[in-house]
Amino acid sequence: MPRWLTNVRILSGSLTMKALPSSEVYQLLEPGPVVLLTTARHGRANIMTMSWHMMVEFEPPLVGCVVSSANHSFAALRATGECVIAVPALELASKVVDVGNCSGRDVDKFVAFGLTPTPAERVAPPLVAECFANLECKVTDTRLVNRYNLFVVEVLKAWTDPAQTNPKTIHHHGYGRFVVDGETIKLKSKMR
Amino acid sequence: MPRWLTNVRILSGSLTMKALPSSEVYQLLEPGPVVLLTTARHGRANIMTMSWHMMVEFEPPLVGCVVSSANHSFAALRATGECVIAVPALELASKVVDVGNCSGRDVDKFVAFGLTPTPAERVAPPLVAECFANLECKVTDTRLVNRYNLFVVEVLKAWTDPAQTNPKTIHHHGYGRFVVDGETIKLKSKMR
Repeated sequence: MPRWLTNVRILSGSLTMKALPSSEVYQLLEPGPVVLLTTARHGRANIMTMSWHMMVEFEPPLVGCVVSSANHSFAALRATGECVIAVPALELASKVVDVGNCSGRDVDKFVAFGLTPTPAERVAPPLVAECFANLECKVTDTRLVNRYNLFVVEVLKAWTDPAQTNPKTIHHHGYGRFVVDGETIKLKSKMR
Repeated sequence: MPRWLTNVRILSGSLTMKALPSSEVYQLLEPGPVVLLTTARHGRANIMTMSWHMMVEFEPPLVGCVVSSANHSFAALRATGECVIAVPALELASKVVDVGNCSGRDVDKFVAFGLTPTPAERVAPPLVAECFANLECKVTDTRLVNRYNLFVVEVLKAWTDPAQTNPKTIHHHGYGRFVVDGETIKLKSKMR
């Protein structure tokens, strides 16, 4: 298989994911979208909604994220050291809220909300096929976990769905109020 | 002076700042806006542009932020343990980029870009009068500073400008491309 083919994956049916260079990962998370986080433990995948995340380093891409110890995903993330951060567009907003309104203790959320777990390449937790970007991550620093539930993770592999052009992300302002991406402006920044 | 008066501050002229309850601070930063960060050292204030931040705790509000050691602000933040995080609206976008395009080593950015430093109540670094929100912060955790330039800060006091109604924030996607807040949607979330 030609080497470049590893940068494209055909998922079920016509769904294709394209590898994103690690140097571009920050452009997904820096703007502060609500994301989904998947974990897998004891043969079972789970998914949660997360808004407390930030970029920590460009390359390799490091991400800080706070996963409350009250979340069912916390134990899985701490025990396995692996997760997928998936970025949903506006069309998934109601499912994103549904995912956040219940716990993996009680519900198989993939089944309940019609989200499609899809095998990742480098980690056990699944990608979310409906999301326009998926980041396969491993935990690299746990020093702030006990005090703040703050994990530092490294993005090992990043995928985007080329069929979702110009996805609009959502940004949480509290209690179910979300601001949707509006217009894009371009300014002469020297900053990456 | 009646106690409630401490929740309103009259700045120069007609500019007024209203105290924001600490329980509502997360609603400003969770959506991922580009912010300004001020520091003060050796009698001199400085200001930088920052996009790598996240909420870490609701109350007291804790914020994680990455301030590169290449930034002039880094040494001041580490030495003094104090900063102000100021949230600019769209109208300040070009100034926000200007602030990011130069260094406090060379320029007094408040003067150069016509931003108004205003005394804070609990910390030495100034508020930015033109911003619709200002968060007075002290550093509470430096364990990840050496490795990641990641500071955890506590918000001691938060101010909003009641004259700026429905401010639209900007979100950086890299290389000067910013998405502006669009429409707001309300969904039935059980999450705070």
